[in-house]
Amino acid sequence: MMGALSGLSAREARQKIRNGDYAGETAGVGPGMAQGNIAILPADWAEDFLRFCLRNPKPCPLLAVGEPGRADLPALGRDIDIRTDVPRYRVFRDGVAVEAPTDILAHWRNDLVTFVLGCSFSFELPLIEAGLSLRHIDRGTTVPMYRTSVATEPAGRFRGPLVVSMRPFRPADAIRAVQITSRYPGVHGAPVHLGLPEALGIADLATPDYGDPVEVKADELPVFWACGVTPQAVVEAVKPPFFISHYPGAMLVTDVPNASLAVI
Amino acid sequence: MMGALSGLSAREARQKIRNGDYAGETAGVGPGMAQGNIAILPADWAEDFLRFCLRNPKPCPLLAVGEPGRADLPALGRDIDIRTDVPRYRVFRDGVAVEAPTDILAHWRNDLVTFVLGCSFSFELPLIEAGLSLRHIDRGTTVPMYRTSVATEPAGRFRGPLVVSMRPFRPADAIRAVQITSRYPGVHGAPVHLGLPEALGIADLATPDYGDPVEVKADELPVFWACGVTPQAVVEAVKPPFFISHYPGAMLVTDVPNASLAVI
Repeated sequence: MMGALSGLSAREARQKIRNGDYAGETAGVGPGMAQGNIAILPADWAEDFLRFCLRNPKPCPLLAVGEPGRADLPALGRDIDIRTDVPRYRVFRDGVAVEAPTDILAHWRNDLVTFVLGCSFSFELPLIEAGLSLRHIDRGTTVPMYRTSVATEPAGRFRGPLVVSMRPFRPADAIRAVQITSRYPGVHGAPVHLGLPEALGIADLATPDYGDPVEVKADELPVFWACGVTPQAVVEAVKPPFFISHYPGAMLVTDVPNASLAVI
Repeated sequence: MMGALSGLSAREARQKIRNGDYAGETAGVGPGMAQGNIAILPADWAEDFLRFCLRNPKPCPLLAVGEPGRADLPALGRDIDIRTDVPRYRVFRDGVAVEAPTDILAHWRNDLVTFVLGCSFSFELPLIEAGLSLRHIDRGTTVPMYRTSVATEPAGRFRGPLVVSMRPFRPADAIRAVQITSRYPGVHGAPVHLGLPEALGIADLATPDYGDPVEVKADELPVFWACGVTPQAVVEAVKPPFFISHYPGAMLVTDVPNASLAVI
């Protein structure tokens, strides 16, 4: 997928993306650098959404919030222009995805506020570096995700269920995964649950609400992390009149090293 | 039990113990200070045992090792005399407990080496301070412990199964317990296992090999920590000609604050 960008730094990859030379997925792009989920909302919705993120930091870990009407995000990379630097976007009107453009220059408005949320890629890398296997990566599939019976903390008009991603591990590796991901609270952090899917209202692990199922073997436990799909699902359900997100899998590649997100 | 020592510092409590004024259990004695399991072996067995502890740091976390023939342990408290400062001892000859004296002055030899191993009291305190409930403490019983099918790493004549202690938690609390106890590698550290007792060869949680059973509710997971009974069980099975331990529950109270054992 990312062939055109392999071997490039995050900044070089963004330049290719900005120039319209790449519109695909970003897994593996800008090695070692954090990637972000994008939500762009009009200012009159942004305040509620900001409070929603602050109240739900595990599914909605804020890497950066832009100034209203501004396309730069200096905390994530000096040259970033959020209107052009994501490979592909989804534009929603009244809750309906109406377009999937490769830039949003024509959609930009002076009242738009950009939110960049951390992504599980950032904690999967240290898990792999620690020798743990991630089955969905071994299988080349998308991590399974589930809507839970756990409600997020509402803020203004935003409310909805917590969505979790699931990765199976043997118990000792599950403990190691808790230790490793606890170092990364800015990118979902420690698991929210493990072992008992029914306690989250998940009836059948084989039928995820998003992504692809993976086997959980008899000697493994399902381990659940709060998922960045949560805010997307909430915003899509709330249907603000105008909303832009990244296209699934095609995220903002930042200049922030994943390693710098470790709190210890 | 500890009424006679309540309100006393660790050092004051040791003085009472040294003077023969107290020979009971040490739970709650010397608030906030680490307590240690004791193993005293002749030098010709001590070298193997030292390597056994180093190879099995989770069940055998060494807080201190004395000089051969010396009764002091300056790293754990300036005034400690291991011959008098433990409330009650067990003296073993050829693997048989022959005496339970309140001091070992009459047994002391110039070739004895003292090992002090960390104890789970040190990590239970921060769990409680974090708001977690420990069922065996709520019930006033001894934590349930199980011999597992997991072998320790042998060293010389010392070998045997890993013994684990079990505390039930709801999944989110189990994750929190992993985080908290990971800070204390010197006192058993993170759990070794959770959720699947059969993977440890434990057929029935209701019949522990040591201690008292506790209920594991339907919405809870059993969480297993490596246990300081492991080295005791190993030494008792190996039957060195001479060996002294603390009497169960009556440990060495040190001047080392539990909080100082946190690595982060």
